Amino acid sequence: MFSQTVEYALRAIVHLADNSPNPCTTEQIAKATKVPQAYLSKVLQSLRQSNVVHSQRGIGGGISLVKTPDELNLLEVVNAVDPICRITSCPLGLKGHGTNLCPLHRKLDEAMRVTEHAFSETTLAEILASSTSSYPLCNEPEDRLTILREPAKPPAK
Amino acid sequence: MFSQTVEYALRAIVHLADNSPNPCTTEQIAKATKVPQAYLSKVLQSLRQSNVVHSQRGIGGGISLVKTPDELNLLEVVNAVDPICRITSCPLGLKGHGTNLCPLHRKLDEAMRVTEHAFSETTLAEILASSTSSYPLCNEPEDRLTILREPAKPPAK
Repeated sequence: MFSQTVEYALRAIVHLADNSPNPCTTEQIAKATKVPQAYLSKVLQSLRQSNVVHSQRGIGGGISLVKTPDELNLLEVVNAVDPICRITSCPLGLKGHGTNLCPLHRKLDEAMRVTEHAFSETTLAEILASSTSSYPLCNEPEDRLTILREPAKPPAK
Repeated sequence: MFSQTVEYALRAIVHLADNSPNPCTTEQIAKATKVPQAYLSKVLQSLRQSNVVHSQRGIGGGISLVKTPDELNLLEVVNAVDPICRITSCPLGLKGHGTNLCPLHRKLDEAMRVTEHAFSETTLAEILASSTSSYPLCNEPEDRLTILREPAKPPAK
């Protein structure tokens, strides 16, 4: 139901949120999220174009979130890379339907509305603060400390 | 959020349900659903392989539903062509997570669970019986009568 691109974008954003406000290099994100670096670069490009992340060159530079983790929600990330396209008019182009959807398309749109709502109500800060024994992207609690301690390197040109 | 294949499969099944128990040819379904015939043939093949539809050759033959419209739900159709793959274990393969999902993957899985539930609770009979001024696949009420009156032709070899 969600594309690989959505999964990868969310992983990258969770990593950036976890390190926020410090920037991370593409290499660091790729390692932490287990996403192939070439694929990740494309995902980050979409996130940059949608102004979800920005990048800064040079020493101490890297990729970071434009908003703080408590201002950024999951829907903004999803819509930056693979938008949830609500059904606003008949996909068959039937003039008689127009914006008055038939029961089939109402059902499909309703599923998207519910998902859209759930994602828009969930911030990255909430994802990181949720109480569960599994911390996002980290195998063991020690992993997290390692990631947090690791300083950002200048991004590769 | 839903693929073109899901959209096309659902349209085809709605048409078949509307004509049930009478069979329809691929041509008739393509015309009614506005789906390219080559694409539709592949979608119908998946639906056949998953035992959602069956086809019968010869005069009076064609494609028809295996179940009645009140026994067949939307989830069975979706899962036949582009399954909703629930997240049962950590997609990063983190041993420390295993089946104990982190908050991010819980959120994604929850969205899928809700959609899965909504689709499994909706039968094709309900889609056709819902009271709305837009009847599935039909521009005007007269269209529906035309479709229902049109006899099935033998399927093309």
